[in-house]
Amino acid sequence: MKPYKEMSREELLVCKEDLDQRYQDAQSKGMNLNMSRGKPEKGQLDMGMGLMSILDKDCDMKSDDGTDCRNYGELDGIREAKVLMAGIMGIQDPDHVIVFGNGSLSTMYDAVCRSYTSGVMGSVPWCKLDRVKFLCPVPGYDRHFAITEHFGIEMVNIPMTPEGPDMDLVERYVAEDAAVKGIWCVPKYSNPQGISYSDETIRRFAALKPAAEDFRIYWDNAYAVHHLYDDDQDEILDILDECAKAGNPDMVYVFGSTSKISMAGAGIAAMAASRNNLDSIKKSIAIRTICYDKINQLRHARYFKDMDTVRAHMKKHADILRPKFEAVLDVLENELGGLGIGSWVRPKGGYFITFEAMDGCAKNIVKKCKEAGVTLTNAGAPFPYGKDPHDSVIRIAPSFPSPSELEAATDLFVLCVKLASVEKLLENEG
Amino acid sequence: MKPYKEMSREELLVCKEDLDQRYQDAQSKGMNLNMSRGKPEKGQLDMGMGLMSILDKDCDMKSDDGTDCRNYGELDGIREAKVLMAGIMGIQDPDHVIVFGNGSLSTMYDAVCRSYTSGVMGSVPWCKLDRVKFLCPVPGYDRHFAITEHFGIEMVNIPMTPEGPDMDLVERYVAEDAAVKGIWCVPKYSNPQGISYSDETIRRFAALKPAAEDFRIYWDNAYAVHHLYDDDQDEILDILDECAKAGNPDMVYVFGSTSKISMAGAGIAAMAASRNNLDSIKKSIAIRTICYDKINQLRHARYFKDMDTVRAHMKKHADILRPKFEAVLDVLENELGGLGIGSWVRPKGGYFITFEAMDGCAKNIVKKCKEAGVTLTNAGAPFPYGKDPHDSVIRIAPSFPSPSELEAATDLFVLCVKLASVEKLLENEG
Repeated sequence: MKPYKEMSREELLVCKEDLDQRYQDAQSKGMNLNMSRGKPEKGQLDMGMGLMSILDKDCDMKSDDGTDCRNYGELDGIREAKVLMAGIMGIQDPDHVIVFGNGSLSTMYDAVCRSYTSGVMGSVPWCKLDRVKFLCPVPGYDRHFAITEHFGIEMVNIPMTPEGPDMDLVERYVAEDAAVKGIWCVPKYSNPQGISYSDETIRRFAALKPAAEDFRIYWDNAYAVHHLYDDDQDEILDILDECAKAGNPDMVYVFGSTSKISMAGAGIAAMAASRNNLDSIKKSIAIRTICYDKINQLRHARYFKDMDTVRAHMKKHADILRPKFEAVLDVLENELGGLGIGSWVRPKGGYFITFEAMDGCAKNIVKKCKEAGVTLTNAGAPFPYGKDPHDSVIRIAPSFPSPSELEAATDLFVLCVKLASVEKLLENEG
Repeated sequence: MKPYKEMSREELLVCKEDLDQRYQDAQSKGMNLNMSRGKPEKGQLDMGMGLMSILDKDCDMKSDDGTDCRNYGELDGIREAKVLMAGIMGIQDPDHVIVFGNGSLSTMYDAVCRSYTSGVMGSVPWCKLDRVKFLCPVPGYDRHFAITEHFGIEMVNIPMTPEGPDMDLVERYVAEDAAVKGIWCVPKYSNPQGISYSDETIRRFAALKPAAEDFRIYWDNAYAVHHLYDDDQDEILDILDECAKAGNPDMVYVFGSTSKISMAGAGIAAMAASRNNLDSIKKSIAIRTICYDKINQLRHARYFKDMDTVRAHMKKHADILRPKFEAVLDVLENELGGLGIGSWVRPKGGYFITFEAMDGCAKNIVKKCKEAGVTLTNAGAPFPYGKDPHDSVIRIAPSFPSPSELEAATDLFVLCVKLASVEKLLENEG
């Protein structure tokens, strides 16, 4: 089929008539599918059911060092859970890890909140400052942006490249503006594009020269072991180690969790940072809690014995997820290939596919999908303040529906893309 | 034996010589006992082991409404966990409950923190105010005071009476000072005195007329079902209901947890409040987390089927705790009765015994105990800023050691009380 932009007004009108008809037919089917959130499906959750009974009623409930995990204490987590989370996050030294509660989002929220109320390693609390800014690589993760917006932190868009965030821009902002206190990063299989940061990008991160002493890189390594393929996997450098080598040991907070490994919302989360950071953070969390849930830490450590066990487990997840990603990608390629009305990358891991529509079409596409029974993440969501400057990015989350549902949903999606694109081209002409 | 205050200097010196010798003997025994924290003992934790396997690998993992507890969602908790926590906290309507994570301390910290960063139901965030004050009934819970101190909140001591806090003072402060934004309460078997608030006290709380619209009562019902005796139990009024009846529905936050019912630090916590409060809180926690650990909620709801099950479980705890309390109280009564150098009340529940020494003796007693191998909660800890104005209150936590250890530790304790008292009396004379 001819690229849409090369069509004449008459051809577009003919095309539109056909698409309108097909859209009407689709609407009449009464679909009800959801591709909006990165939720694991039942099959993935079933794979973790061994967790439920690994601490049976005859278990001694003791960590390796003899701590009774059923009682108070061990603020920063039991050793074997630190080892597990260091392995998952790709951190060399488990002594640089604190194990937290049931999710990394609250761990990140608390890190920002702590800085807001009490400062960073002795710096002025952000709530006492007139302006605080965060750099936000876009498209990015809406819940990151919601945290910074919640604290009145000004967000600055940083475009993503195939190698990671635009580092020229990052370096300039960080070096020149002392109000810039942080940057949100999902360095591996990024949310939503599935991009992994190159070694050069990571080394440039580690070598940043911040104007603000309380600048930190918020490194959300959410998809560290979430590969889709056995034989084609991304690996990234250990940012904590790189920062230390570059003379910036305190500049990064690394986050991770087992939410998309074991159970969503009932896993364990962790943070890795320099000793200076950890000492300061521990003083603060000692006010908030006596300890995190060590029983769930023990449960995870005993079930996921070592990184080989984790990798084998994630391979089974991949076997479920891969056909779903491919179902979506195949429809995109078959239906939109060569039409010049959208682009996407084929991710090798993570939880999302990013579709980039023609400028000014994303909201319309999402609305049309919604009105025919397919819920997508809101257009704009992957941008600070929900504002996509080009109204072009759509995040597709293929993890929850079945492959056949995804095929049906993506069939509708491509129809809506075509229709919205034709409408936009006619509007531009008219 | 003669009351110490009636002894002559000579009698005190003879007494001191004997006590010094006995203290030296005690020191040489090399004891190592801890009565400092309200930790459950192993036997209590063993009683909850059924929790570990109640969700076995064949469990459907679904809440009553069909929600898969292994996946994201249900921000405010599953229904059956709300019912359980309402029952435990003594709240009539489970719809007024949010179920949180693994402990009530973090739930309370977050409540204060939220007010500090974002205000209370639309009020000015406390971080933007020059002065914020909390009323602190004393003696009270050191971790409450640590939270308010952490946020730079000024703390005002309110003396406790056998009926609860001195309500004349509370009413005056709350009505007259708009900087007063909260009061910490442990209304049942209070920490550390074991006092339960009378109906009149609770009705006066509910009828407060705060100068500040964002004033809240922080009602930590930590020992709601933690009775020591079968036939002599305190019950308190439902503050949420009383506040509603008094036309102050939004004025209270109720907190509770299963930390000292199921597993310490691995239970579930909850908060109860008015619909207005809950709506506002839910908007804020939706930024922090996708959901709390619903699997642990389901685990608790299935194990503790109803309040009869909870009560039967707590009766077994009481059978372990009661002899411990009595071991301590018996030694106190046998050794210190009639000497006029200290007083205590016999609590009917909770986790602590409060000993009130002669003015100026508490620090010395705790130090002497420490130097002979028995660790007590720091003197001063039950007061804001760690400052006991009379240096007289000592919190004894009998839950963790065995009855025979407690007897030995209390033997040392009374020896140290006698010695410190004699020293003080001689000092006052000299």
